[in-house]
Amino acid sequence: MSTFTDTPLQRPPIAPLDDSLRAALQAAIDDKTKPPGSLGRLESLAMQIGLIRGETQPVLTRPTIIVFAGDHGVADAGVSAFPPEVTAQMVLNFLGGGAAINVFTRQHGMVLEVVDAGVRAPLPAAPGLVNCRVADGTRNFVEEAAMTPAQAGAAIQAGMARVLRHAEQGTNVIGFGEMGIANTSAAACLMSRLTGLPLADCAGRGTGLDEAGVARKREILERALARHAEVTAPLDVLATFGGYEIAAMTGAYLAAAACRMVILVDGFIASAALLVAARIDPTVLQYCVFSHCSDERGHKALLAEFGAEPLLALNLRLGEGTGAALAWPLVASAAAFLKEMATFSGAGVSPGAA
Amino acid sequence: MSTFTDTPLQRPPIAPLDDSLRAALQAAIDDKTKPPGSLGRLESLAMQIGLIRGETQPVLTRPTIIVFAGDHGVADAGVSAFPPEVTAQMVLNFLGGGAAINVFTRQHGMVLEVVDAGVRAPLPAAPGLVNCRVADGTRNFVEEAAMTPAQAGAAIQAGMARVLRHAEQGTNVIGFGEMGIANTSAAACLMSRLTGLPLADCAGRGTGLDEAGVARKREILERALARHAEVTAPLDVLATFGGYEIAAMTGAYLAAAACRMVILVDGFIASAALLVAARIDPTVLQYCVFSHCSDERGHKALLAEFGAEPLLALNLRLGEGTGAALAWPLVASAAAFLKEMATFSGAGVSPGAA
Repeated sequence: MSTFTDTPLQRPPIAPLDDSLRAALQAAIDDKTKPPGSLGRLESLAMQIGLIRGETQPVLTRPTIIVFAGDHGVADAGVSAFPPEVTAQMVLNFLGGGAAINVFTRQHGMVLEVVDAGVRAPLPAAPGLVNCRVADGTRNFVEEAAMTPAQAGAAIQAGMARVLRHAEQGTNVIGFGEMGIANTSAAACLMSRLTGLPLADCAGRGTGLDEAGVARKREILERALARHAEVTAPLDVLATFGGYEIAAMTGAYLAAAACRMVILVDGFIASAALLVAARIDPTVLQYCVFSHCSDERGHKALLAEFGAEPLLALNLRLGEGTGAALAWPLVASAAAFLKEMATFSGAGVSPGAA
Repeated sequence: MSTFTDTPLQRPPIAPLDDSLRAALQAAIDDKTKPPGSLGRLESLAMQIGLIRGETQPVLTRPTIIVFAGDHGVADAGVSAFPPEVTAQMVLNFLGGGAAINVFTRQHGMVLEVVDAGVRAPLPAAPGLVNCRVADGTRNFVEEAAMTPAQAGAAIQAGMARVLRHAEQGTNVIGFGEMGIANTSAAACLMSRLTGLPLADCAGRGTGLDEAGVARKREILERALARHAEVTAPLDVLATFGGYEIAAMTGAYLAAAACRMVILVDGFIASAALLVAARIDPTVLQYCVFSHCSDERGHKALLAEFGAEPLLALNLRLGEGTGAALAWPLVASAAAFLKEMATFSGAGVSPGAA
């Protein structure tokens, strides 16, 4: 079997954040007309945004959400509460403007792009749908690897290309969402294999399985993990258990960090794709803002793996990038206070005696 | 000493929420193209907004923040890290557009009104400043009651009047912020007396006291509580320990609920004012969305007193209504998904098999 080890990933380099601006940023934050530290988490966020953008008054532009869609062969094993046709149906719903991610991106004036990375059913050409499909869904990883290394590589490159396209158009803050029936199964296997955590800690209810459904899902996934016990290198793990939308997200994270974008990390699947990206290059994490802790079992432990402090905890478990879109106003607020608030000296307000 | 018991508060009645719409709202939420319950906290929020507005597709209009400012005689006892002049300086900062609340309300297109309920220093007449000043700050409650019942009543009525004015202009969602050096001291005494919790659980660092400062603040406030040991009725407690901005907020809550507004509750001071309002009429709580859990000691216990589930936990401790403004986009998202998302039947998406 060919593996990624044979063909290293072509990708733009990611620069570590330049810490030399830290003191100037802290001074700028502390000179704002408020008690020191009183904006709490928004202050550390402002610091991170400033370091990412390399400015004491960063301006975030053309906020963008890309939703990657793909189907999973493992759906045929009965691991999801929804039938696999729903992936294509939901893509059409995105194109029609009726899904939750449409509502939230409209509300916040965000650019929304929908990418077919490998949906099983054919989709009509439509304005707003970007066709990057590598194949008609993955194979069932209970029986064989979901993707060949070449297929996974093509999806990674497609995700990178989409981000570079948005960079050209002025995007410097971006989030990635996904749609793919059975992709919590793929994400759980990725997480378990790459972190070493037991599958039971990684696999949960997904879109809404009952207890018996979760038990069956775990039994099926345990079998899959055992079958591919020898696969441990990150890209090979991705090809074996992942999906086209997950591989595209992995590439998208790497490209976004290379472009010095502020990255809004969505929920469980999005974090699993980030885990692969971070195993390829951990520097990517310096560019990430963790938008929320989802209700899906496994996400909390995955966030802990990153040392992440998510902005929201609203028990979401929808995907589509909805958590990233909901957290965006807070990220915008952090940048805005840094740029727009008056300073103690300028406003004639007495600094504290403390 | 005259007390409020002699003169009952004149106020519009608050109707309890009509639960008859609950089933229709739940059906509307569950028909949206997403797994049932997958929008988590936003779904319970959509339910509450629908019940408050009495509609299955509520539209929230003219979101408004009113910041009430007032000074506290107890500031002279040395309970704050900032000198009392800062209250007036910050009001001028609000009017100049340079404070955090200006930045966040601008970002979200919210109406911002600044009300002088009783600042110590004279303030120039200015567009955007509403003059409701009852007195030049309160008296020092370590020595005597902060306000007379008539003064507290005047501030309550002023707060009510401002809300009714905004209701006429189309506001149906509103949050209240405050500015007043030493008002965490006032709020801590209100909380301790009305809940029976020890003062040490209610009084914290405020705008940034060090440990010695907190110890001194607690010692001073314990003395004040002991001096007014006989005061227990909610409005009398308000007059004794409160401030003009806190009394105005108390009235504002009662009026907002009477007008069936969705109320965005800010941080510690705002919650202490709500505590007084809820002791006058607990029905007010049905209209409240708790925007965040602040970093000020006491707020968590106060939220527990209300059985509140705050939307954000960002370690804010600024006041000004900033937490309410930061939470507003989430409240807007809850209303938006209920109104705008496609339904399973309409979108041709298969409902889950679970």
